[in-house]
Amino acid sequence: MIGLGTVGTGTVKVLVEHQSDIQRRLGCKLELKTICSLGIRKQDVAWLGGKVQTTVDWHDVMRDPEIDIVVEMVGVLSAARAIAFAAVDSGKHLVTANKQLIAEYGVELAERAHAAGVNLGIEACVAGGTPILHAIREGLAGEHFVGVYGILNGTTNYVLTEMERRGCSFAEALAEAQQKGYAEPDPTFDVQGYDARYKIAILAMLCFGQAVHVAEIPAEGITAIEQVDFAYARRLRRTIRLIASARRRSRGRLEIFVRPMMIPASSQLANVLGSINGILLMGNKGGNTTLTGRGAGGEPTGVAVLSDVVQIARAMAAGGKGATPLGYEKWQPSRMAPASDNVISAYLRLVVRDRPGILARVCALLARHRINIDSVMQEPAMPKNQLPFVMTLEPRREKDVSQAVAEIARLPFMARPPVMMPFADLP
Amino acid sequence: MIGLGTVGTGTVKVLVEHQSDIQRRLGCKLELKTICSLGIRKQDVAWLGGKVQTTVDWHDVMRDPEIDIVVEMVGVLSAARAIAFAAVDSGKHLVTANKQLIAEYGVELAERAHAAGVNLGIEACVAGGTPILHAIREGLAGEHFVGVYGILNGTTNYVLTEMERRGCSFAEALAEAQQKGYAEPDPTFDVQGYDARYKIAILAMLCFGQAVHVAEIPAEGITAIEQVDFAYARRLRRTIRLIASARRRSRGRLEIFVRPMMIPASSQLANVLGSINGILLMGNKGGNTTLTGRGAGGEPTGVAVLSDVVQIARAMAAGGKGATPLGYEKWQPSRMAPASDNVISAYLRLVVRDRPGILARVCALLARHRINIDSVMQEPAMPKNQLPFVMTLEPRREKDVSQAVAEIARLPFMARPPVMMPFADLP
Repeated sequence: MIGLGTVGTGTVKVLVEHQSDIQRRLGCKLELKTICSLGIRKQDVAWLGGKVQTTVDWHDVMRDPEIDIVVEMVGVLSAARAIAFAAVDSGKHLVTANKQLIAEYGVELAERAHAAGVNLGIEACVAGGTPILHAIREGLAGEHFVGVYGILNGTTNYVLTEMERRGCSFAEALAEAQQKGYAEPDPTFDVQGYDARYKIAILAMLCFGQAVHVAEIPAEGITAIEQVDFAYARRLRRTIRLIASARRRSRGRLEIFVRPMMIPASSQLANVLGSINGILLMGNKGGNTTLTGRGAGGEPTGVAVLSDVVQIARAMAAGGKGATPLGYEKWQPSRMAPASDNVISAYLRLVVRDRPGILARVCALLARHRINIDSVMQEPAMPKNQLPFVMTLEPRREKDVSQAVAEIARLPFMARPPVMMPFADLP
Repeated sequence: MIGLGTVGTGTVKVLVEHQSDIQRRLGCKLELKTICSLGIRKQDVAWLGGKVQTTVDWHDVMRDPEIDIVVEMVGVLSAARAIAFAAVDSGKHLVTANKQLIAEYGVELAERAHAAGVNLGIEACVAGGTPILHAIREGLAGEHFVGVYGILNGTTNYVLTEMERRGCSFAEALAEAQQKGYAEPDPTFDVQGYDARYKIAILAMLCFGQAVHVAEIPAEGITAIEQVDFAYARRLRRTIRLIASARRRSRGRLEIFVRPMMIPASSQLANVLGSINGILLMGNKGGNTTLTGRGAGGEPTGVAVLSDVVQIARAMAAGGKGATPLGYEKWQPSRMAPASDNVISAYLRLVVRDRPGILARVCALLARHRINIDSVMQEPAMPKNQLPFVMTLEPRREKDVSQAVAEIARLPFMARPPVMMPFADLP
C-alpha cells in the first residue's frame, strides 16, 4: 500500500475488518506486507498488530519480491504515474483509485501491464464503492452498449438536490457541502464538471473500446443554475442533474459530454439524491441497467480497492493471470461526434429588464434560426428589473440553438447571460 | 448450447449480434460449435451460417473434446441437473440460467466443479440481465454484507405496480400480465413467491457464504393484496412490493424470507416499476448499493449467460482457471434465525361486517398481546357489510403479532381473513 490518505486508510480499515469474508471468498489469506507513506513510522501502524512493515521510499515496495500486488493511493498525479508504471514494470499487479491516472494514461498503462503479464484494478476510479466497472467489463461482458448516463460527482449532486429539496441558492448549498466535507475549499474541480469528465472518459473507454482523450470531452458545470430553474423544472415535471454521458452515434463515433440537463422527475437518475452516484447503462439486448451507491469516502472507496485486490488474488490462486477489471483490450483510437450536430429540445431561461417588446424580439431571433418555441412560462411575483422567464424549444440541431442563444445574450435588455439546458428523456 | 427455448435462442441471437464486441473484450473469437435440442435439424440453424453442428443427444456434447464450455438451457430440473453434473465431470465449464438447479444443487455442483478444475457461470439465475451476482462476488468482493433486499420476480412486480398505478384489482392486473406474456397461464410459481425464493436463496449463499436450503425460507405471495391496501399505503406514504430479503442476525444467523411489505414511497425499490427487477445490497463499509434492470426475457437473460461465457473464456485465454461468478468457496452450513423472533411494525387490514363494538374487541385483543396501536384509519364510502379498516401496529415481536392476527381471524364479525404486512423502512 503506497499512500495513506483518506482512501488508503479506508482501504486498510476495510481489509482488517473484513478479513474473514475475504478469506472465505479467496480460499487463502490476504496479507498487507508494507505500507509506504511520507514520514510514516512503525508506531503509526501499531494498531495493525505489528506485522506490517513501513517505509518512506516506494522503491522499496518495487524491490520486494514477496509483494504481488501494489495498491497505489498517493493522489498526486505525477507520483501516482511514476509508481503505477514502476509497479507494472516490476511485474506487480496494480490497483489504483486515481481517475486522472487512468483517464490520461490508462491505455498506455494497460499495454505495459499486458506486456508484463500483470493486472490493473481500477474499480475505485469511478463511482467509489459502486461496482460499475465490473458491471461493464464482467457482469455485462456480453452486451453491446449504446449509451451510458451517469451522475458521477457527489458534490454537485448534493448541491443540486439540496437546491431542489430546500429551495436554497447555489451558494448556500455549496457552503453547506463544504461545511459537511462533501466539497473542497476550492470547489472548481467538482462544480465545473472536470471530475465527472475523467470518470465518463473511463466509462466510455470500457463501454465502447475507444481510447478517449479527456480534453476532447466538453464539460459544463452547474454554477449558472439558480433556484428559479428548479421552480420551472417542477412545472415541467423534470429536475436538474449534472449528467455525464457517452453515446454511440453513427459510424462508430462517440458523443461524450458533461453538462447539467433537465431530466424527467420520474426517471431513475432523478431519484439519485445527495452525494450518491448513479449510472444508467443502455444495452442493445439487455435494456437499461442502473447502479446507484456511494461515490466517495474512504471506506466505500476502500471496498472497491479491496474488491479488485481480492479478484486479482483469486486469479493468482487459480494459477492464471485471470480476468480483471481493466485487463487488456485493444482500444481503437477515439472518434468523436461533436455534440453540436445533435438534435436537442431545450430549456432556455432568460433574465431581462422588463420592457415592452422583449418577447417579440426573442421570438423573432429564434424564428430566424428556425427554432420553434414549444412553450413560454413565467413564474409570477418576480422583481421587474430581474425578470426570469423560460422558453422550451422544439427539437433543433444544437449548433443552431447555441448560435441563437449567443445572439440572445447580446440583446440589450438581458440582465444576465441566458441559461440553456437540453432535455434528456431518460427512463 | 444444450436447450433452445426462449433463453437459449436469446443467447444465440446475442452471441451472433455482439460477436465483435465480444471479440474486442476477449482478444479472441468465441465459437458456438454445437446446439443440442430435442428434434433439432441442421436446417433449423441454417441462419447461423451453416458452421454450427446440431445433435439431439446431449451426450455428444460431453464427448466432444473441442467443446470447452457447456451452456445448459433446458429448463426442466432433472434434465438440467444431469447435464450440469455430466458437464463438470467431463471437465467442461458450465453456464446455466437454472435457478432451481443452483438453489438446490449449487453447493454440490460447485464442489464437483472445483474438484474438476472448471468454472460455473450462474449470473442468469437471478434477475436476468442485471449483473447482481458479479456485483456481489467481484465488484464488491471486499465487502461484508449485512443485508440484501430484492424485487426478484417481474410478474408480481408488474401486477403490484399496475394495481398501484391504475387502481385495478389483483385479478385484472394478473390477467393483463398473462395477456402480455409476463405471467404464466398457471401463475402459482410467481404469485406465491416460490420463484423469488429460489433467487433469494442464491443471493444469500453468495452474500453470506452459507449453504441455504430453499425449503427453510418462508414464502408468502401477493394473492391477498387488494386495491384498498394501495389506498391505505398511499395515506402512509408507502407502497407495497413483494420483497425477498436475507439479513445477518445475531451470532451469524440469517433471516431470509419472501413476503409483501409496506416500503416507503420514496425508497429506491418503490421506484422499481413493471417487470423490472431491483436489488438493494447493504454493506458494512460501502453502504447501500442498488442495481435495477431487466429480470427476464430471452435476450436480456442471454446477455447474462454470454457475459459468464466471455468471462470464462477470458480466464482460459489468460491460461488459468481464473475467477468466475460462483467459482468455489467453502460454504458453511446454514444457520437460520426464525423471522418470528424479529421485532416488526406492521400494517393490519381487517374487513368486517359493520356492527357496534368491533374496534373495542380488536383493540382489547391486541392489548392482551401487548401490541400497541399506532393509528387507526378508515377510507370513507365503503359498503357496510365489507368494511375494510386499517391499523398500524407499533414494534412487537412477529410471533406475538402473528398470534394476535390468528385470533382476530377467528372473531365472528370478520368478513375476510385479515391481511398483515410488516413495514420495511428501506432507504
